[in-house]
Amino acid sequence: MSGFDAVEVIRAKRDRHALSDGQIDWVIAAYTRDEVADEQMSALAMAILLNGMDRREISRWTDAMIASGIRMSLPAEALGGRRTTDKHSTGGVGDKITLPLAPLVAACGAAVPQLSGRGLAHTGGTLDKLESIPGWRATLTGEEFLEQLGEVGAVICAAGDDLAPADKKLYGLRDVTGTVEAIPLIASSVMSKKIAEGTSALVLDVKVGSGAFMKDVERARELARTMVELGCDHDVKTVALLTDMASPLGLTAGNALEVRESVEVLAGGGPSDVVELTVTLAREMLAAAGLDGKDPAERLADGSAMDVWRRMIRAQGGDPDAELPRARETHVVTAPADGVLVGMDAFAVGVAAWRLGAGRARKEDPVQAGAGVEMHAKPGMTVRGGEPLFTLHTDEPARFARAEQVLSDAVTIAPEGSRPDLPPLVIDRIAG
Amino acid sequence: MSGFDAVEVIRAKRDRHALSDGQIDWVIAAYTRDEVADEQMSALAMAILLNGMDRREISRWTDAMIASGIRMSLPAEALGGRRTTDKHSTGGVGDKITLPLAPLVAACGAAVPQLSGRGLAHTGGTLDKLESIPGWRATLTGEEFLEQLGEVGAVICAAGDDLAPADKKLYGLRDVTGTVEAIPLIASSVMSKKIAEGTSALVLDVKVGSGAFMKDVERARELARTMVELGCDHDVKTVALLTDMASPLGLTAGNALEVRESVEVLAGGGPSDVVELTVTLAREMLAAAGLDGKDPAERLADGSAMDVWRRMIRAQGGDPDAELPRARETHVVTAPADGVLVGMDAFAVGVAAWRLGAGRARKEDPVQAGAGVEMHAKPGMTVRGGEPLFTLHTDEPARFARAEQVLSDAVTIAPEGSRPDLPPLVIDRIAG
Repeated sequence: MSGFDAVEVIRAKRDRHALSDGQIDWVIAAYTRDEVADEQMSALAMAILLNGMDRREISRWTDAMIASGIRMSLPAEALGGRRTTDKHSTGGVGDKITLPLAPLVAACGAAVPQLSGRGLAHTGGTLDKLESIPGWRATLTGEEFLEQLGEVGAVICAAGDDLAPADKKLYGLRDVTGTVEAIPLIASSVMSKKIAEGTSALVLDVKVGSGAFMKDVERARELARTMVELGCDHDVKTVALLTDMASPLGLTAGNALEVRESVEVLAGGGPSDVVELTVTLAREMLAAAGLDGKDPAERLADGSAMDVWRRMIRAQGGDPDAELPRARETHVVTAPADGVLVGMDAFAVGVAAWRLGAGRARKEDPVQAGAGVEMHAKPGMTVRGGEPLFTLHTDEPARFARAEQVLSDAVTIAPEGSRPDLPPLVIDRIAG
Repeated sequence: MSGFDAVEVIRAKRDRHALSDGQIDWVIAAYTRDEVADEQMSALAMAILLNGMDRREISRWTDAMIASGIRMSLPAEALGGRRTTDKHSTGGVGDKITLPLAPLVAACGAAVPQLSGRGLAHTGGTLDKLESIPGWRATLTGEEFLEQLGEVGAVICAAGDDLAPADKKLYGLRDVTGTVEAIPLIASSVMSKKIAEGTSALVLDVKVGSGAFMKDVERARELARTMVELGCDHDVKTVALLTDMASPLGLTAGNALEVRESVEVLAGGGPSDVVELTVTLAREMLAAAGLDGKDPAERLADGSAMDVWRRMIRAQGGDPDAELPRARETHVVTAPADGVLVGMDAFAVGVAAWRLGAGRARKEDPVQAGAGVEMHAKPGMTVRGGEPLFTLHTDEPARFARAEQVLSDAVTIAPEGSRPDLPPLVIDRIAG
């Protein structure tokens, strides 16, 4: 007899009471053991979405999710003196930043233990992108993970099933019950995995805008603050940046297309927004780990970040020199008029890439490595009517029409000479 | 392709939008066919509980529940000229009113097609009460039902599985997900069954107070108004009375105990509150059916209501002259002091009867026919310390202690000469 009852817990939150520590511990543990039914947990999730949770409740909820699985320990002594620091992005269109960032930060002497997920809907997943590299595998044993982290300094791999299993189960449930968009549940989902993975420092890239989960700056700020508080409550030095996702990051959205762009950044080139955000996040990650003296821009320029990338890919079976897959078909979409490109809607570009085969509708679906959208202009640039604006890539040309359809409203062109009012890349910074 | 999606319907209500007719029709039909999952319907139910539904939505939701099964037609021509009129109580402690009421109204010339349910938790079920009569059976075929309704004028039986099956499924789900207490869902649940059963007039007895589902007059009034509106929208002449459930109705709570008290009322005796409410509700039922000229008090006095009762019980296999079951053990609880009884908490008495074996915790549980609480005083009466206040009845004496425990705080005794401020039996009346 635990003394707890699912209906009483649901009613408490429904009636706007704070849940007790005991109620939270019990409901998460019982749900993980299948003793609280899915229909009970979804009712509770909806009550949490609509009535909220306070800081203590969210912190305890996160503890309970962590306690449903293992919590790793990654002391610097076990990693050849490297201090751990990680990044999490809430997801955006063209957001390939993890790919150049992890090796760059490792090149500055830290250890980046990036346990990643796959993409759903219009935002791509880091693992899907890396899997376009021939031979690369996402799954490592615990020993392989630790060894690579100490020797190479960067690991990007799939989270094991024993890391916050309650979160895995709850996330699947929220996805089908309209309860994804609850800040306490988003924050505890992200942070339970990051805390359980054992990092001692964390930088959160909270995306805001049409291509992001959070369309609204105030909600994004609330999510950022909630996650930073959770980090502080769990001894992880945590900082959040709110960054713009009104338009896509870089000039590509799609798996192999984004790997190619990431390699360009590591080679010292690449689109300036990707370079700027990579270097900014690297500085934050290093500072959070107490490694302030390092200059990541130098490590990009001198090729040492590229060296780590190649070692990181090779350590997971990948061939960094292999040709990346290309889609069998391409189709060019041209600019409708002369003028200044003042807007390129990130959501529309994300949906187009998804429709071309870069993303999945259900988690069982495969993705096309070569599919996606290549952009030939960024907001603020002058375009000429009839010149290429997008190149669409897919193995199945039947997909072009629906992708082009969603892109038809994606761009806004103003008369020549206009000065678009573009948001800054970094909108705000929230620290503990 | 229906074009509807469960997650979109849930999100719409979650985000405080009104659901469209198409969304409502689809979600109820798909849930009945198991194509919307329990965890999706419970999330939707919680969103409805917290964000509400407007009159059009509730009306359409009720239509969709009716459309999930059959809708009966009971024209007077098929019932020997009798016009249908029915009553529904939201449930209270000692609420046996249906038992004398149905034959009384039939004795006045109407037809009462009372499809009833069983009890859950601390409120008893009409069918459980009648099943304490040897031989009586709750299940009738459609033909038996119609024949008895025309000839006897009153039927109290179990609702068939084909009457609003969506409601049956949804009610079971709400019970385990903390979503029972949503006015739109309560109102549509009650009214879908009453409208589908085919009555042309309906009187709702909405209980208010500790022993009722609604503890608060304002919430009870809102529920009453919602149900009256639903009746009007579906061509059922509907009236609601808000009646007091701060203290139990009558002097008994328990199955056979309440049948005995009902027979006393039919014999022209019985506790005055039970008689008063029975006659008041009978007048309302007759008036709603357009049979205003009849005086039900006369039909109680002249024994014709008792005659109908005997025919009604016999038509369903019961023996109206058989000895009713008695519990094997009794235990007397005495008044703690001299004074005026100013309060007897209905909820506590209901829980005591339940703990003695009169009610069930789960719908599969059996009930004891003889178990329950007999009261020897009503609020407003003078009591003497040491004299009997309650007699507890059960087959299992081990149950006495927990029943007595909940009764220990149930009564409030004021100094002699006090004039308690008791609520009226009928608090309000709401018509369309």
